[in-house]
Amino acid sequence: MHENDATQTPGGPAPSPLSLAESFPSSQRIYREVVHGECTLRVPERRIHLTDGTALDVYDSSGPEPEDGAPAGVPPQPRREWIERRSPGEGGNVTQMHYARRGVVTEEMAFVATREGCSGEFVREEVAAGRAVLPANRRHPETEPMIIGRNFLVKINANIGNSAVRSSIDEEVDKVRWATRWGADTVMDLSTGNDIHATREAVLRHCSVPVGTVPMYQALEKVNGVIEELDIETFLETLREQAEQGVDYFTIHAGVLLRHVPLTSHRLTGIVSRGGSIMAKWCLAHHRENFLYTHFERICELMKEYDVAFSLGDGLRPGCIADANDEAQFAELETLGELTRIAWKHDVQVMIEGPGHVPMDRIKENVDKEVECCGGAPFYPLGPLTTDIAPGYDHITSAIGAAMIGWYGTSMLCYVTPKEHLGLPDAQDVKQGVIAYKIAAHAANIARGNTKARERDDALSKARFEFRWEDQFHLSLDPPTARAYHDQTLPAPAAKQAQFCSMCGPHFCSMKITEDVRRFAREQGLEDGQALAIGMQAKSEEFRAGGKALYGSDREEEQAAALAAAESEELGTG
Amino acid sequence: MHENDATQTPGGPAPSPLSLAESFPSSQRIYREVVHGECTLRVPERRIHLTDGTALDVYDSSGPEPEDGAPAGVPPQPRREWIERRSPGEGGNVTQMHYARRGVVTEEMAFVATREGCSGEFVREEVAAGRAVLPANRRHPETEPMIIGRNFLVKINANIGNSAVRSSIDEEVDKVRWATRWGADTVMDLSTGNDIHATREAVLRHCSVPVGTVPMYQALEKVNGVIEELDIETFLETLREQAEQGVDYFTIHAGVLLRHVPLTSHRLTGIVSRGGSIMAKWCLAHHRENFLYTHFERICELMKEYDVAFSLGDGLRPGCIADANDEAQFAELETLGELTRIAWKHDVQVMIEGPGHVPMDRIKENVDKEVECCGGAPFYPLGPLTTDIAPGYDHITSAIGAAMIGWYGTSMLCYVTPKEHLGLPDAQDVKQGVIAYKIAAHAANIARGNTKARERDDALSKARFEFRWEDQFHLSLDPPTARAYHDQTLPAPAAKQAQFCSMCGPHFCSMKITEDVRRFAREQGLEDGQALAIGMQAKSEEFRAGGKALYGSDREEEQAAALAAAESEELGTG
Repeated sequence: MHENDATQTPGGPAPSPLSLAESFPSSQRIYREVVHGECTLRVPERRIHLTDGTALDVYDSSGPEPEDGAPAGVPPQPRREWIERRSPGEGGNVTQMHYARRGVVTEEMAFVATREGCSGEFVREEVAAGRAVLPANRRHPETEPMIIGRNFLVKINANIGNSAVRSSIDEEVDKVRWATRWGADTVMDLSTGNDIHATREAVLRHCSVPVGTVPMYQALEKVNGVIEELDIETFLETLREQAEQGVDYFTIHAGVLLRHVPLTSHRLTGIVSRGGSIMAKWCLAHHRENFLYTHFERICELMKEYDVAFSLGDGLRPGCIADANDEAQFAELETLGELTRIAWKHDVQVMIEGPGHVPMDRIKENVDKEVECCGGAPFYPLGPLTTDIAPGYDHITSAIGAAMIGWYGTSMLCYVTPKEHLGLPDAQDVKQGVIAYKIAAHAANIARGNTKARERDDALSKARFEFRWEDQFHLSLDPPTARAYHDQTLPAPAAKQAQFCSMCGPHFCSMKITEDVRRFAREQGLEDGQALAIGMQAKSEEFRAGGKALYGSDREEEQAAALAAAESEELGTG
Repeated sequence: MHENDATQTPGGPAPSPLSLAESFPSSQRIYREVVHGECTLRVPERRIHLTDGTALDVYDSSGPEPEDGAPAGVPPQPRREWIERRSPGEGGNVTQMHYARRGVVTEEMAFVATREGCSGEFVREEVAAGRAVLPANRRHPETEPMIIGRNFLVKINANIGNSAVRSSIDEEVDKVRWATRWGADTVMDLSTGNDIHATREAVLRHCSVPVGTVPMYQALEKVNGVIEELDIETFLETLREQAEQGVDYFTIHAGVLLRHVPLTSHRLTGIVSRGGSIMAKWCLAHHRENFLYTHFERICELMKEYDVAFSLGDGLRPGCIADANDEAQFAELETLGELTRIAWKHDVQVMIEGPGHVPMDRIKENVDKEVECCGGAPFYPLGPLTTDIAPGYDHITSAIGAAMIGWYGTSMLCYVTPKEHLGLPDAQDVKQGVIAYKIAAHAANIARGNTKARERDDALSKARFEFRWEDQFHLSLDPPTARAYHDQTLPAPAAKQAQFCSMCGPHFCSMKITEDVRRFAREQGLEDGQALAIGMQAKSEEFRAGGKALYGSDREEEQAAALAAAESEELGTG
């Protein structure tokens, strides 16, 4: 077996992403129109049309399609008129938290309320309390608003961005489209290489989900990579440049304090956050306290002019299982709690980044400590990876931890791709990471008892049970892949109507047998278990009287024909 | 983006598996020699040689290589002489449980004790108590013994087998070799198509891990697929045929009782186990109790002649999230507990199969109930899948559930491949399923606090931190894939010595910075946090005195050269 066969992704950049129609056949982007004050909000969903005449509407982060009305090349700006009409609060404060605390349900809040199936007032309360973040820079009118908080659907973030060894603006824009198509709720542009400003501009103008960045990377470019030369002025200048472009949240490693660094001395893998290591080095070089910490209120003043949310970085997160939940990590978390309270004093929105690498038995402690230290601010972990031994599969090692931490109360999950620890992800890696994390987030939503999320599982399982193969594909997270896998063994069109699959063949299909028993029960007007038991006895007599076949002869012949067609096509394609 | 690019596996059967040396470069199968009574046991491990001169020995299920001494085409039979020397107990009983209860530590027990790092006496106690199963048909001398139980490493099973729409004996044998190479601890041959006897024979003779089957499939072939014509005589004849071939454990759906079937009437997906639906239909057709239940003691009598273990099938497992943990499922589980006690009366080994599809919040209940109902017999779940919406990715939806249920106390995890619900897995799907489940089992072992399992995480993380790229690949679950991913961005050989990767590039590597701080601390003889803090102050002065570079100039130049080499090769390959 050649190893090229064993890898999941082809080398090099991928061609442009598929259209919505190609990615999700039988789906359509619809808009739910909601009147809010003087505005009519157009809240998107994706409608999946099923072959039984019904449809299922699902949450959709993919952004407007060209045919939705905007001229080609001009991205729609659903938020522009809301932003223009709104008057800033005290000190030019335009944050959603500021409005929420003044009792205002903004258009953004009404919009996300429709997406989440709750009231605008509930959204307002959660934002006012700091339990939810609604990332919405006033300079990013392209955003379709979304909300991150423990009482809402679990969200996922996809990281994109180039590095010094690989760079292309078009490729990054394609990754954004690709990530949001498959379900990313926010995107972080982590570029560190060339064209950092232009890449971010292109990303923002083509992105209908909130965009996050780590401004430290660009600040460091401004001092030619010399960490010791960083200072608060350069940093604030960078923040303003990025806030003006429309970045919705900033990862800022203000919790890495001088006194924390020695706590990492016994670690197996030291400091693995790029921002964390930069600030640790700065602190060492100057033997002074982290300037992001000492000047934190100046940063808050800037954030509230634009409504950029904090994503307080966990610069001391563990980089391996051995370092999980250690003193350094939790000492920083306490500092992040302190900073959260300062930001909230300015009505600036805050979420808290989390680990990293954590064994399953120590995941819950992270959520509990975060809630305790940070007053319920949304938690935004990376993974966590539950073992270190599977580079190449860290989307899986971490989807396990992500699903669990999502269930335990996390608000947004930062994805990990198969390339983690090995290389820069390409578009296909981005897709693999997004799908793994949609699975984790959805599993968490179900475990939390979200009935709207469960509708999709039930619709798909019903389609599966009724042998509606097309519907099973269309309801899945990745219809083209589900179809391609089915085609590999049974490519004949007739197989898509068949009441069996290649796993069991036609004689061993448990669902076929169950379905038949059920139909009989329905025909007899039997619905509950007791009545079915009586029906079973009747059917037992019918079986014995009528010979061997469970199905009527027409049905048997039809299935045999489907099998024969499938088999002959199979032989034909060799 | 073309969807063929998006699928993880190529169509059609894969070529023959790689050799051990190609799959695991820098590894070697070694044997730990252990004297036990008159025998010298040769217990395998895989030794991973590292570039720092050390090595790590890991559990190895891959079986002997041809160069290990056996003539080509003649599989080694490590158990032959043990079996021949041993005298059966009462009534011809040769089960490991029988010997264990008589106080005998068999060669098999001593063998697995070495593999697990415990005493033979501990193994004996666990087997005697029914808390562990050591599957070891006396007609399968090719097996390298392994143990399944909650106080041992979590194991994984890979299902292989053809169906009516696809069939090739060679392909199935390749799947077995491929599955055990990547880490399957047992293999189940679920063939239902042609050549069912010959396929099983080929599998058994080429398989050094225990093999399980579902004998009902062949029994049904013997009555030409007419479920109503099944009876205990045909079934016992089939059991004997397969036991004579050497099958180590049988899935038998003896817990599907007539009274349970109506409990499935409100289910969304009815009965999804093939064996379960067959027995449900049989019960309906005859309106009689399941003959596997009523004749269970006759089955036990046969099993103990060979030491075939029961894997009591959960014929009423849920087939979707909506049906999880329902009355039908748990009613059957109680019956399985009753059957367990009967089997133990005969000293026949038992494990219990489990679901299926279960949301995360309801997984633990399954383990608790199983322990309660079945007296601690090893639990052997399929997955469970934690959501239904991702056909094409059910190795991931289920690895989440598998890791959790493993942590909660499960003994063996039955894998799920990406083709689940869509088609018959090929060799590449088998590999994807095995790797996902090795991740789940390993994460569970770590969460349970197994220090031997953790050694590998720590060794890999240490290699990562020290930029020993080759060691990082070699310690991983899938070295060729890890290497291929690294090569995609940085194919130059120099990049394998580089102190950075393509994710961050050379200027943003947190590990590089941390490593440097550490080296400094070591040079100064500083080890604890307090001393490091003092050292940091000194270093801070050194930084300010000595200019900007954290690294000495030689180091900087070396890294720049590696980057330049990587970049030029990158351009060269376009």
